[in-house]
Amino acid sequence: SYLFSTIAEKISAFEKKHPEKQIIKLGIGDVTMPLPQACIKAFHRGVDEMAEEATFRGYGPEQGYGFLRERIAETGFIQQGADIHADEIFISDGAKCDTGNLQELFDTNITVAIPDPVYPVYLDTNIMAGRSGELKDQRYERIVYLDATQENGFVPKLPDTKVDLIYLCFPNNPTGATITTEELKKWVDYAMDNKALIIYDAAYEAFIQDKDLPRSIYEIEGAQKVAIESRSFSKTAGFTGTRCAYTVVPKACMAYDHAGNTHSLHDMWKRRQSTKFNGVSYPVQMAAAAACSDEGRQEIQGLVSYYLKNAEIIRSQMQSLGLECTGGENSPYIWVASDMDSWGFFDLLLEKAGVVTTPGVGFGKCGQGYIRISAFNHREKVMDAISRIKKALA
Amino acid sequence: SYLFSTIAEKISAFEKKHPEKQIIKLGIGDVTMPLPQACIKAFHRGVDEMAEEATFRGYGPEQGYGFLRERIAETGFIQQGADIHADEIFISDGAKCDTGNLQELFDTNITVAIPDPVYPVYLDTNIMAGRSGELKDQRYERIVYLDATQENGFVPKLPDTKVDLIYLCFPNNPTGATITTEELKKWVDYAMDNKALIIYDAAYEAFIQDKDLPRSIYEIEGAQKVAIESRSFSKTAGFTGTRCAYTVVPKACMAYDHAGNTHSLHDMWKRRQSTKFNGVSYPVQMAAAAACSDEGRQEIQGLVSYYLKNAEIIRSQMQSLGLECTGGENSPYIWVASDMDSWGFFDLLLEKAGVVTTPGVGFGKCGQGYIRISAFNHREKVMDAISRIKKALA
Repeated sequence: SYLFSTIAEKISAFEKKHPEKQIIKLGIGDVTMPLPQACIKAFHRGVDEMAEEATFRGYGPEQGYGFLRERIAETGFIQQGADIHADEIFISDGAKCDTGNLQELFDTNITVAIPDPVYPVYLDTNIMAGRSGELKDQRYERIVYLDATQENGFVPKLPDTKVDLIYLCFPNNPTGATITTEELKKWVDYAMDNKALIIYDAAYEAFIQDKDLPRSIYEIEGAQKVAIESRSFSKTAGFTGTRCAYTVVPKACMAYDHAGNTHSLHDMWKRRQSTKFNGVSYPVQMAAAAACSDEGRQEIQGLVSYYLKNAEIIRSQMQSLGLECTGGENSPYIWVASDMDSWGFFDLLLEKAGVVTTPGVGFGKCGQGYIRISAFNHREKVMDAISRIKKALA
Repeated sequence: SYLFSTIAEKISAFEKKHPEKQIIKLGIGDVTMPLPQACIKAFHRGVDEMAEEATFRGYGPEQGYGFLRERIAETGFIQQGADIHADEIFISDGAKCDTGNLQELFDTNITVAIPDPVYPVYLDTNIMAGRSGELKDQRYERIVYLDATQENGFVPKLPDTKVDLIYLCFPNNPTGATITTEELKKWVDYAMDNKALIIYDAAYEAFIQDKDLPRSIYEIEGAQKVAIESRSFSKTAGFTGTRCAYTVVPKACMAYDHAGNTHSLHDMWKRRQSTKFNGVSYPVQMAAAAACSDEGRQEIQGLVSYYLKNAEIIRSQMQSLGLECTGGENSPYIWVASDMDSWGFFDLLLEKAGVVTTPGVGFGKCGQGYIRISAFNHREKVMDAISRIKKALA
């Protein structure tokens, strides 16, 4: 994917041309607020334990420490009514790694369905694995694209053919769209009927404030049999530079071979992880466990609210300019339509306002004409960016 | 690989049968001494930076922070006479991950050469990738095995056919054998002549005390063109639970496609890492950089000397029992021959002495009849283990 490197080049060219101008970055979805105090305290405790012979920790359990997996199961799933247990959770160093590596478990001949637009890692890793076929008209011939457009409210329709592996991401990156329980149930039913598997990327679930929206696919009956879910501490507790995430592979979840025999996905992923991964840093797991404590969760709610307030400001201000917006309510991303093409709109905002966004077309063909604005920044920078954009578009 | 799970089951059965007996573990190569104070201090500083808005770090450079890569290049390579630069170093969360993931870059039809005995990850990851063929007589038919035996001093001979990818590991896990500059040059020459690539696992290089032995494959002329080298902070600075390692992919290093065209391995690995990996925790990289400081290196030398003293004791005491030993001089592993089979010797030491070792056959067919003893433990435990083994074998 050349999206972010092209953006970086354009920024660098702009900075050379206008060394006096301060750029405001609302492009990449990277947090800016410090780690919660609860996490910092536990992180330090973890480091202190590594300094003493009596408390030093060497190799940890490959699936992650029990103390962290237990807390995630309890606070992230059981309390929300999702029947997920600690031994179904695999701690990792990133949702990107997990959603990128999961495809390894499958044959190169399977049919993969990927939303358009979406986070580029799903497509890129399948291209690298040789599952895409040739590129024709901006689309790889062997990939089944799930178009997310204005018409379907950015929630793709079910594929009309049989597919084997489906990637879904809600709240969506980049559109910020969410999915209802009713719509999500259709995907679970499709997967059951078609012996398909869903990789559900819920990295932004903490941003869902609407109580009627599902935060986990396991709130849907039967999902344990057909879905893997990835989540992260990155966008909630601010772990983008600290690195901790997790993936749920329920014991009931099955994969099918060519002959139609079932295989435990849990066993397959466990084998993959224990062969190619050696667990997450112990002090980091301590910090992550603190993010699941009462104190930590309260602080995280503060962070999420802060970014959501940014999102609300961006959304309402862009709408006041007559621009159509999706997301920004249960999501840190605002998906803004324009009458220009994505790169044209991106260039205009960079050149005239010194504000960096992300061109929607970088996430897929259906993203053409849109830009993604990220709410991850300081409030004053967001306010400044808004007033600059208003001037630029006046 | 069922090796370590079988060992765990045997230990668990022993503990049930003899709840009063204290087991001493000289099996798995896991460090027991705390992190160097230099690392602890820097680790805390890194955590503190994550607590303040002004110093907080989000996503870092995917290849790792420059401050760490610069120090590694300088202290790990340039000062040893190996011409390796910071931009050729990729920071990762483990040498296991790197040596496990590197095979991803290559076609499933290439021919892979793997030493026997050796660290099981090289073989396991190639089996999972579909490169092994069927298992016949304890050997996979498509793998070229490089036998390391008493006869060749546990340094395998060059393959007599053309292979594409070669794994080498020195100081060797499990045999503790080292390779001379002269012998290593033969491998580099073979790779150049045969358009082959060497993955050189140097996770134990810090244990080399003999000034005549190469610590890096890049001490051999031309190796930059044909070799990738992986190293780790695990066994040196005690990072098995802290997680930081690195892999060198020189810019001169090339891969060949079916048509014989060359491709930059550096570009391929960079693409792989930036698509599927998001970097190592910032405070961990701070701790790793401190391990490369003058203070850190001095402390590491202390740790390495401590474990090497253990190794010397184990080796000399086992020899005094009339058992033939390899390793334990420039390596933390002692490879002990016996007149029993590996599991028989393992069982005897567990049952009669309560000492856990690792059966050599678990590392490959050529390991039959041997056990690996690890020097990673506290001195008093090592001494206790030795006197128990002496009693058991008396």
